[in-house]
Amino acid sequence: MNEKWFFDDLAVGQRFKSASATLDESAIKRFAGEFDPQPFHLDDEAAKSTLFGGLAASGWHTAALTMRLLVDSMPLAGGIIGAGNEIAWPRPTRPGDILTVVSEVIEVTPSTSRPDRGHVVVRSKTNNQRGDVVQVMTSKLIVPRRTG
Amino acid sequence: MNEKWFFDDLAVGQRFKSASATLDESAIKRFAGEFDPQPFHLDDEAAKSTLFGGLAASGWHTAALTMRLLVDSMPLAGGIIGAGNEIAWPRPTRPGDILTVVSEVIEVTPSTSRPDRGHVVVRSKTNNQRGDVVQVMTSKLIVPRRTG
Repeated sequence: MNEKWFFDDLAVGQRFKSASATLDESAIKRFAGEFDPQPFHLDDEAAKSTLFGGLAASGWHTAALTMRLLVDSMPLAGGIIGAGNEIAWPRPTRPGDILTVVSEVIEVTPSTSRPDRGHVVVRSKTNNQRGDVVQVMTSKLIVPRRTG
Repeated sequence: MNEKWFFDDLAVGQRFKSASATLDESAIKRFAGEFDPQPFHLDDEAAKSTLFGGLAASGWHTAALTMRLLVDSMPLAGGIIGAGNEIAWPRPTRPGDILTVVSEVIEVTPSTSRPDRGHVVVRSKTNNQRGDVVQVMTSKLIVPRRTG
């Protein structure tokens, strides 16, 4: 599928993989300085005595970078518009980690009130370069119908 | 409570309010350019013909700014460490919006396996300057016990 994807193109079980992105130490500290200024995201030494045991990216940074990878790999007609998300961070993201997102369609539901759109639930797992899952996100997306 | 808050200090029903933060147009476009480069987050004109009907911040930007407000207003011992989140964006965040977060403790559960910590569920509503709710987030946090 090279063109934009409409609701009608999506089916449960479809999977798609993103490109990769590296999260380096300076980006981790810059994001944290602006949005999540806590010692374990800002200072290598201070991070050692915390639950993380060393510098880790803000979960919101992992989420934002995951979004970037999704935008580039999931060309939904109308864009990626989320109505809601569940998000979990089973492991921290570390400096130098290379992230890749594998997504799977797990629900497709035509809207009963709006014939021009449907709801699609996508589960996106963000993996590091060792294949460890650093984020699991389940997103409810609004997707236009081709015949809308 | 001026000092750090431990698990033992928290009880269901406690509420706390953050300071305010303004989300201006240049910040919206900068965040979107890096993490969520979609027309409705980047371009005023292009946004008009989308579901948003005009420029809107990325939901992840609203989430990141909410985190910043929480870090400054919820001095948990050990920091704000989320094990998981549910997040919904009932309305878009617009250029110039002034955001404030009101949080409420909705669950406190001592860990059965780790006597040094507990789990606390906090619901945080992010409001704009008109009192509209732009984000509802329910976060499962790991909080150390005072006697841990």
